[in-house]
Amino acid sequence: MSVSEQILLQLTPLPFPFRKELMVKLNFEKMNGLIPVIAQDFESGEVLMLAFMNQEAWDKTLETGRACYYSRSRNKLWLKGEQSGHVQNVKEIYVDCDEDTLILKVEQVGGAACHTGYKSCFYRKLNGELKIIGEKIFDPEKVYK
Amino acid sequence: MSVSEQILLQLTPLPFPFRKELMVKLNFEKMNGLIPVIAQDFESGEVLMLAFMNQEAWDKTLETGRACYYSRSRNKLWLKGEQSGHVQNVKEIYVDCDEDTLILKVEQVGGAACHTGYKSCFYRKLNGELKIIGEKIFDPEKVYK
Repeated sequence: MSVSEQILLQLTPLPFPFRKELMVKLNFEKMNGLIPVIAQDFESGEVLMLAFMNQEAWDKTLETGRACYYSRSRNKLWLKGEQSGHVQNVKEIYVDCDEDTLILKVEQVGGAACHTGYKSCFYRKLNGELKIIGEKIFDPEKVYK
Repeated sequence: MSVSEQILLQLTPLPFPFRKELMVKLNFEKMNGLIPVIAQDFESGEVLMLAFMNQEAWDKTLETGRACYYSRSRNKLWLKGEQSGHVQNVKEIYVDCDEDTLILKVEQVGGAACHTGYKSCFYRKLNGELKIIGEKIFDPEKVYK
């Protein structure tokens, strides 16, 4: 059993409203099997991160109610939070006009989506130089051991 | 002169705060020269669309203050709004932790970002089936002639 599967088993099942058999068919062909997925904070609407899903990650997300991505750097399925425990509970899913991009509205466990410890991966604003405007929630050295 | 350039010339110049010489170096290598870009409504924070930029589109965006993307289907530079006139005035730019994804906070001229006439491309919510929840702003048959 993979680490992702072990973590999923430890989590409380979600009352998950997304029935797989009624799903829309997403277009994974434009990007060699991947689609971009935007994760937004369910309550504030803040964009937390952008990641990619393949068909398997999409299926896992629908089955479990937790955001599951495909890691391009590690070339494998990536249950968000599998190392840190900071999983994303999916509250709503939105599909774009071309059916090749998603928005997940999520509850971010632990409060931070970025591996740097910031709430959002987009914690820097460009104004000539990059200026940190985001909120740091955790110390990555303590979370990723 | 291209259609995009003609349109840009007709627009009032923006007081644009992004000085190119101080820019961060974005990583275009992960996706064959492209990066994903999220456009968010400047005022409401609603995610309007996701598109891609290559280096040239990024440079044009910084120079002009209008969102310029790279169209994967047409394989060319795409000034958003070049057909409809519904350009995006860039108000703020955010860079992610890996420097391979952007958020543009924009003022969407015409009120709708999607070619279908909806305010956002993400006008459908998934709940078993796809349900339209977005607001239709224009009739695409009247805008794209």
